Amino acid sequence: MTATLVDIRRGAYYDSAFLMRLQRTLADLPDVQDAGVVMGTPANQELLAAADLLPPEARAARPDDLLIVVRAENEAAARDALARVDDLLTRQQAARSAEHRPQSLETAARLLPDAAWVLVSVAGRYAGGVARDALRLGKHVFLFSDNVPLEEEIQLKELAAARGLLVMGPDCGTALIRGIGLGFANKVRRGPIGVVAAAGTGLQQVTARIHQLGAGVSYGIGTGGRDLSEQVGAITFRQGMDVLARDPETAVIVLVSKPPAPKVADAVLAVARQIPKPVVVAFVGHAAATRQLDNLHFAAGLDDAARLAVELTAHSAPLSPQPWGEPDSPRNRGAGGAVFASTQRYLRGLFSGGTLAYEAQAILRDYVPRVWANAPLDKADRLPNSLISQEHTIVDLGEDEFTVGRLHPMLDNELRIRRLMQEAADPEVAVILLDVVLGYGAHPNPAAELAPAIAQARALAAAAGRHLEVVAVVTGTDEDPQNLESQIGQLRRAGAWVDTSNEAAVRYAGRLLRALNPQSLIPTIQYPVDLATLQRPLAAINVGLESFAENLIAQGAAAIQVDWRPPAGGNEKLMGILARMKKT
Amino acid sequence: MTATLVDIRRGAYYDSAFLMRLQRTLADLPDVQDAGVVMGTPANQELLAAADLLPPEARAARPDDLLIVVRAENEAAARDALARVDDLLTRQQAARSAEHRPQSLETAARLLPDAAWVLVSVAGRYAGGVARDALRLGKHVFLFSDNVPLEEEIQLKELAAARGLLVMGPDCGTALIRGIGLGFANKVRRGPIGVVAAAGTGLQQVTARIHQLGAGVSYGIGTGGRDLSEQVGAITFRQGMDVLARDPETAVIVLVSKPPAPKVADAVLAVARQIPKPVVVAFVGHAAATRQLDNLHFAAGLDDAARLAVELTAHSAPLSPQPWGEPDSPRNRGAGGAVFASTQRYLRGLFSGGTLAYEAQAILRDYVPRVWANAPLDKADRLPNSLISQEHTIVDLGEDEFTVGRLHPMLDNELRIRRLMQEAADPEVAVILLDVVLGYGAHPNPAAELAPAIAQARALAAAAGRHLEVVAVVTGTDEDPQNLESQIGQLRRAGAWVDTSNEAAVRYAGRLLRALNPQSLIPTIQYPVDLATLQRPLAAINVGLESFAENLIAQGAAAIQVDWRPPAGGNEKLMGILARMKKT
Repeated sequence: MTATLVDIRRGAYYDSAFLMRLQRTLADLPDVQDAGVVMGTPANQELLAAADLLPPEARAARPDDLLIVVRAENEAAARDALARVDDLLTRQQAARSAEHRPQSLETAARLLPDAAWVLVSVAGRYAGGVARDALRLGKHVFLFSDNVPLEEEIQLKELAAARGLLVMGPDCGTALIRGIGLGFANKVRRGPIGVVAAAGTGLQQVTARIHQLGAGVSYGIGTGGRDLSEQVGAITFRQGMDVLARDPETAVIVLVSKPPAPKVADAVLAVARQIPKPVVVAFVGHAAATRQLDNLHFAAGLDDAARLAVELTAHSAPLSPQPWGEPDSPRNRGAGGAVFASTQRYLRGLFSGGTLAYEAQAILRDYVPRVWANAPLDKADRLPNSLISQEHTIVDLGEDEFTVGRLHPMLDNELRIRRLMQEAADPEVAVILLDVVLGYGAHPNPAAELAPAIAQARALAAAAGRHLEVVAVVTGTDEDPQNLESQIGQLRRAGAWVDTSNEAAVRYAGRLLRALNPQSLIPTIQYPVDLATLQRPLAAINVGLESFAENLIAQGAAAIQVDWRPPAGGNEKLMGILARMKKT
Repeated sequence: MTATLVDIRRGAYYDSAFLMRLQRTLADLPDVQDAGVVMGTPANQELLAAADLLPPEARAARPDDLLIVVRAENEAAARDALARVDDLLTRQQAARSAEHRPQSLETAARLLPDAAWVLVSVAGRYAGGVARDALRLGKHVFLFSDNVPLEEEIQLKELAAARGLLVMGPDCGTALIRGIGLGFANKVRRGPIGVVAAAGTGLQQVTARIHQLGAGVSYGIGTGGRDLSEQVGAITFRQGMDVLARDPETAVIVLVSKPPAPKVADAVLAVARQIPKPVVVAFVGHAAATRQLDNLHFAAGLDDAARLAVELTAHSAPLSPQPWGEPDSPRNRGAGGAVFASTQRYLRGLFSGGTLAYEAQAILRDYVPRVWANAPLDKADRLPNSLISQEHTIVDLGEDEFTVGRLHPMLDNELRIRRLMQEAADPEVAVILLDVVLGYGAHPNPAAELAPAIAQARALAAAAGRHLEVVAVVTGTDEDPQNLESQIGQLRRAGAWVDTSNEAAVRYAGRLLRALNPQSLIPTIQYPVDLATLQRPLAAINVGLESFAENLIAQGAAAIQVDWRPPAGGNEKLMGILARMKKT
């Protein structure tokens, strides 16, 4: 008859790799059907129950207890199995002490002084303490452990940031440091792509795809999944971006995350836009309204992120020569280097095409905080009076309000020319954006009327000491009755900047506005990570899963395993006293 | 001394092209500084005021009145100018009657019986009536006029849909019918790209870019900007998609709009997914979470839409041979044509990688309405009990709840194998999705444990008469210690469908689920537009802006201009009586 027997060992700590081995050994014994060896948490008890391994007496186990359950063909076999446990525990103990391993981080650090890293994978409730010790020793921390409280994560990361150190994690599965994988990591070629990831398997999938596509990775910096929450505020993520921005080996940066808290996402992307390198953004499940925004490239998923990054390495020259972290040099110049007056800040868009006006608003969102419009994207941005512009304004002159008993502005330029003069007289106006729609039905020669008006508007501004930039999008084909080339020529001779793409024209205007309305510079990292600590041959102290140290050695890195035991034998009260003593 | 004089003509109707000419003639007279000739709406009065053309007496003008204002160097010059108005009005009248034009739609239709189209560009308050007359004569309507009430738009479109006719508009600026432009339209090469657009200049910009890129357009079907509102419910947009789906010349479809009402957008995209042709979606300012969803390709803007469409014409074979509008043939077959049992409907994803589990949920949204998860995208989809799956479920076995005192599932397959067996025994389960993450730190040979379990799970299902599809994504590189190729081989030999891309694996599973859980088929158009009416040489009756008729003739189409006057001389009461008489 089947028998299920239980053994509970109060307050005993063993690492999870050992527990797995013990469970397998028991399950493989003759006449044993199944076995469970776990810490006695409610979740683990539920899992045992699902496997028919939770007789009533097992429910007495507490989270700190080791719970051993054996189900066998008969009671004798179950008893035999449990009797083996002590023997197995002793053998494990003997194997450990035979290796003469350091028993503390401090000793390990003396034995391997080059170690810039400490890998921590002990149970969550001990992990914070080990990480804190590592930071005090001046080491970067790779914190694999999960079940670490949020408060502790914040404290650790603030402590690390103040010392120019990284805390990757908690719950950080993966990192790649110049070809060496920490934790779970694929063997990935070294190359010019740097990745910061708040997503462990996201980092693995992206770096594995990059390798499959023939390219390589400089750094894969994990941050733990909570780093982009509002509470943590991307402390490690910002440090990671800063490292990759400064690293001379990194030409293209990839940011990977589940959708961050919106405020944090905005802040992270604002920093990313200041980096003079292309940045691929892969926030899984996050909707991006555009594919590219200056140096930011939005990926549709993990595959797409890898593909984009590899493509971008082909054009990997930095976008601008200014050093990362310093303010932009003043760029408030229009076409031909003309200089705007100090009063000039705003754009006025005078459109005949409703969709073009609408798309212009959508694109300008990437450059300025607010655009007023008579046909706005959001009601909150509705221009109070369509006849009077304010700040940045886009007017659709083809809206119903302007066309009662009046020809459409594509046919009749009069209203638009009047408005153009009105805007040109405004000392705050720097850029005027116009669309010129050709084709059947439209005015037979719009440039013949608009070009002189543009020249006059620019002259009017120039007489007042201002440079007025006029940007025009011409929608048309080479077969249109108006002659596309001649229309463009007339506008250009009047001094307008012309493109046939609405997006290109609006982005040109947007860049001017951005230079004229500089955002307050995003604060850079106060205590930057010393790149030299990352560049020297990797050496690490490992506390927890032994396979992590073995893997480092297999990859040619130096590693030392600490024979770690919970402080005070896992007794929480004593641990608290010890922690307080260390602080003083 | 400057003098501004006013002339108000009560209840007089003139078309807006004539008003523009009159205004220019007056403004060009000697000693005249400026002139305004407009219908007396409040908006127009404001515009006159902005141009210093609104003396107090002009405010007496009502919206139906013609308001003429002249500002001249002196009173005599202003008086002279106003005295010319009668003369100019009479000459216009004479010119019109000399042409012996038809005075009504009915007469025009008799004179040009081939006309399948009526173009309407009279003032908004008359436009609905003309459009209704055109529909009663069995004509498609191109309704350029704006200022048409929403209620009237709905009535017109419902009337048209019941007769298999199109009402493009109101406020429809552009259409392209097999190379002929209606209203405002660029001269665009004919080709395999069909466009439906609730955005006039959006349609122009996209078709002009297509032409610039060397490709061409079959149809550009305008709908008016309000067609995708909840009130109108995309009546014309759906008809347009149906026309392009059936049109043999159209290989790729482009949908253009400002962001539609979300419900309407969902409905439109659901229809678009049933079309066996690639569809490019360009909803300006609308955020798309993905770039591609089966046959749907989401564009980031108007430029991108044109580029995508041109690229897609290179692979323009229909996606599937089934005729558009008929239900899919049953496709509930797995790899190798294996047939699922009728109970089998659901997916169970058992992941070790959190980001992969998360991305899987994001992608599955494209295929099934709801996926439960222990780490869900939305809290509302949280699995009540992580140990028990329901319907479509994705479980991340690396979540904290599973890893207290237990090895991570990338290291220890035991928990996942138990769960795999549990899911395989569920008669409702059709697809099991697994990730296998290789690399340092991970299990040294995960396939050696997972492959036999997969084979066993499939055998278990087969013994119960079911086909269990196991889909696995393997994240790894050819340099990983586990040997990527051997891992994939072991899994394939166990009967799993394997890919190294998470997205590819999840989309494969998604397609299976879609076939197993067929959505109720979107109702197709009840009274489809007769393609023959669009295919024969274009002939049209034009009511309103004469240049529209002239442009048709210039493009080689047949057109006849109606010498239209408002019914009952524009008297609203009499118009109402006339309209009621027609209905009976």
